[in-house]
Amino acid sequence: MTSRSQSAISIQLPDWSADLIAGTDAIFPTPESRMHLAIRLARMNIEHGTGGPFGAAVFDMDTHALLAIGMNLVVPSSCSMAHAEMIAISCAQQKLGRFDLGGTPSRYELATSCEPCAMCFGAIPWSGIRHLACGARDADARAIGFDEGPKMSDWKAALESRGITVETDICRQGAADVLQQYAKADGNIYNGRHA
Amino acid sequence: MTSRSQSAISIQLPDWSADLIAGTDAIFPTPESRMHLAIRLARMNIEHGTGGPFGAAVFDMDTHALLAIGMNLVVPSSCSMAHAEMIAISCAQQKLGRFDLGGTPSRYELATSCEPCAMCFGAIPWSGIRHLACGARDADARAIGFDEGPKMSDWKAALESRGITVETDICRQGAADVLQQYAKADGNIYNGRHA
Repeated sequence: MTSRSQSAISIQLPDWSADLIAGTDAIFPTPESRMHLAIRLARMNIEHGTGGPFGAAVFDMDTHALLAIGMNLVVPSSCSMAHAEMIAISCAQQKLGRFDLGGTPSRYELATSCEPCAMCFGAIPWSGIRHLACGARDADARAIGFDEGPKMSDWKAALESRGITVETDICRQGAADVLQQYAKADGNIYNGRHA
Repeated sequence: MTSRSQSAISIQLPDWSADLIAGTDAIFPTPESRMHLAIRLARMNIEHGTGGPFGAAVFDMDTHALLAIGMNLVVPSSCSMAHAEMIAISCAQQKLGRFDLGGTPSRYELATSCEPCAMCFGAIPWSGIRHLACGARDADARAIGFDEGPKMSDWKAALESRGITVETDICRQGAADVLQQYAKADGNIYNGRHA
């Protein structure tokens, strides 16, 4: 192996996302306005063919300003970790230059167009995110063939016990519609294969 | 937000890791030889002050060649996702140019100096890794104040049920010694905070 090929991990956001953000309101005062952005990212991602039907964003809940966006980039980035939530959290942290979005006051919300998979669920406690807002349910993703992985059934309680509030079913139908749109277009349903 | 600041996630491996690999045997035929590399990465990481006491590597089990390395880079990369296992898997995938290390034959092993946290556990089924080899136990990490997160108690069975074999306690003492070395040097024990 050359030192170059192992020297970095790099994930680029698609070009359309910069244009989308430039044309978007700067402030997102309601849960629905924040979820609409996450859903819009999911929809734009499939319409541009840049990844799976999942979007996410991190917001500063003091100012209701957008801090960072994410979308599923597993296929274009050749990285199975590149789920929307992981991208949004990593971008937020690298933008602020700190690995922990928590502290006092703890003010960051992650809005995600679909309830998190086992990996993203496990990542949230390390991120410093203090509030998780979800659109579509696990069941909506499973309905088109995606798999949330080996996630404990009481995942919401597990987050709440770590001081992370969880709100679900925000604009669920709109979020689920994007999943259906993806399935109807024969989008790639990649998953860990079973034995 | 500027488009530049949200345009990419970038994680650099420390300079010492290229030198280490250049001076390392090319072939790792035994479980112990593979775990020794993971432990060495953990030790070098703390001795160079480049992150937490965790190392990992991905091996091609057909040839026993090293494919990619990882070490905990949470603090220097300002990214809470940058656990050793996530770095090793992401580097392996980006090196091969595909998000899935599986397929037929499924030949990649992830060796990690410590049993995975909730996030890394959840990431493994998406990676295509087919064999997980662990050094120190969760309990060894907890003994110095780290937290594996909200991980199901039957995590090994959950991986096995997805066709991923799991082997534990490989060179456990050597791996646990690195954790103790880190604790004695007053290394930073970062965790998701509890409510």
